[in-house]
Amino acid sequence: MIIDGKKIAQNILRQVQDKFSKTEKQLKIVAVLVGGNPELKKFVELKKKAAEGIGIDFRVYEFPENITNNKLREELNKIVKVKTTHGVIIELPLPSHLNTQYLLNTIPEEKDVDVLSQKSQGAFFADRSKILPPSVEAVKQIFEEYKINPKGKTAAVFGYGLLVGKLMGHWLVNQGATVSIITEFTKEPEKFSKEADIIVSGVGEKKLITDGMIKERALVIDFGKDVDFETVSKRAGLITPPVGGVGPIVVAAVLKNLVELWS
Amino acid sequence: MIIDGKKIAQNILRQVQDKFSKTEKQLKIVAVLVGGNPELKKFVELKKKAAEGIGIDFRVYEFPENITNNKLREELNKIVKVKTTHGVIIELPLPSHLNTQYLLNTIPEEKDVDVLSQKSQGAFFADRSKILPPSVEAVKQIFEEYKINPKGKTAAVFGYGLLVGKLMGHWLVNQGATVSIITEFTKEPEKFSKEADIIVSGVGEKKLITDGMIKERALVIDFGKDVDFETVSKRAGLITPPVGGVGPIVVAAVLKNLVELWS
Repeated sequence: MIIDGKKIAQNILRQVQDKFSKTEKQLKIVAVLVGGNPELKKFVELKKKAAEGIGIDFRVYEFPENITNNKLREELNKIVKVKTTHGVIIELPLPSHLNTQYLLNTIPEEKDVDVLSQKSQGAFFADRSKILPPSVEAVKQIFEEYKINPKGKTAAVFGYGLLVGKLMGHWLVNQGATVSIITEFTKEPEKFSKEADIIVSGVGEKKLITDGMIKERALVIDFGKDVDFETVSKRAGLITPPVGGVGPIVVAAVLKNLVELWS
Repeated sequence: MIIDGKKIAQNILRQVQDKFSKTEKQLKIVAVLVGGNPELKKFVELKKKAAEGIGIDFRVYEFPENITNNKLREELNKIVKVKTTHGVIIELPLPSHLNTQYLLNTIPEEKDVDVLSQKSQGAFFADRSKILPPSVEAVKQIFEEYKINPKGKTAAVFGYGLLVGKLMGHWLVNQGATVSIITEFTKEPEKFSKEADIIVSGVGEKKLITDGMIKERALVIDFGKDVDFETVSKRAGLITPPVGGVGPIVVAAVLKNLVELWS
């Protein structure tokens, strides 16, 4: 079965709008976009559309590709301090000359809808965060929608990046899954993935995961467009499609986090 | 081969003393001990002996088993603020009525030699901590002593506790190992452990790991006294003994962290 990300996203947005409409606040979220990456731009547009669709202001600050670390830090320090801004997103990946974590650390915890500053990560890994990172929230929502209980199941997480793998591994273990983390250094990824009831991937490498690598009827959640959908979907029990999969759910989760933090 | 923890600890302490003697500071470390757990008391005594052996002051504050969360928090807030105290250790586990993370969060990052406050964990998981958690430092020291490169190897981590498993998993992945986290919910632990080049255990359950569960010539590092040493040691390539294994290395790592933070 193919996971209907749009439907799940709409459900989240409906709940968010309900909760939001009960507060008297006007919420505003700001996205910081560095350089001209067209995929990132498109993703920001989707966030903007979803936010505005439920009455949340959304503003994009764009900076040139060659901005320095210090200059961007300076600009961020101004942006995050604005009282009428309730959430700040730094679109990742940043150009490679910039120090991502250092820049993410400018975002105060109460505006960190992506849960990516050092302080927010500390809260998350100490299991004391008020909100979940959007990718984790997306998986949680998929589990709820399709009544999947990860306890006692085996999970293979492909990649250990800031946005998906690192956070997902921690959360899945906390849910009672036995988690294996597969990285570029793993010699036989299929040894782990073939045994896994759940596969979560966040690498960013096309056709990294093929049908020979997965267990019959596995749940496959693809954040990195890593899965060879055409073949894997025939073998998987449940799978996110490349379009209308996790994308819309992540967008909705960001807005959910904003409203959770401010209501 | 049996890992000589005492020898590794002595090497660390020698380096710590060298570095420490070059500063003009008198360093003091404080251990907070709640209740009368004799094993914890013994462990604190070992830390005290090691600290004093290299000229570092060591003071123990003892509190009764039934102290309330608020009262202990109040006492801790006083202890951590003393300017002549450079490191604070809260001996774990605390009695179960206390909120461990909330209490650990009283320790400021520059005195958090165990890397356990929410803030310190944030730094560690964001790969920006100046020091490693003592259990992780101990494994690093074992790798260095026995020239083990974890990159491309498989590792099974037993347990996902605050002191060992959670931190170890992250660090081992960062070193290029393929890590599987095994918890109480794992249905077939041996499936993972039998494939593992490296086993790190921090559960606290006697004879949890038996010789049938490990790969021939594996490296076995036991923080929880979980390993059936008599049988497993015959199969393992390298193994920590129940006494003189990781214990002394962890103690030395705590003092190393103190000196790293203050020199």
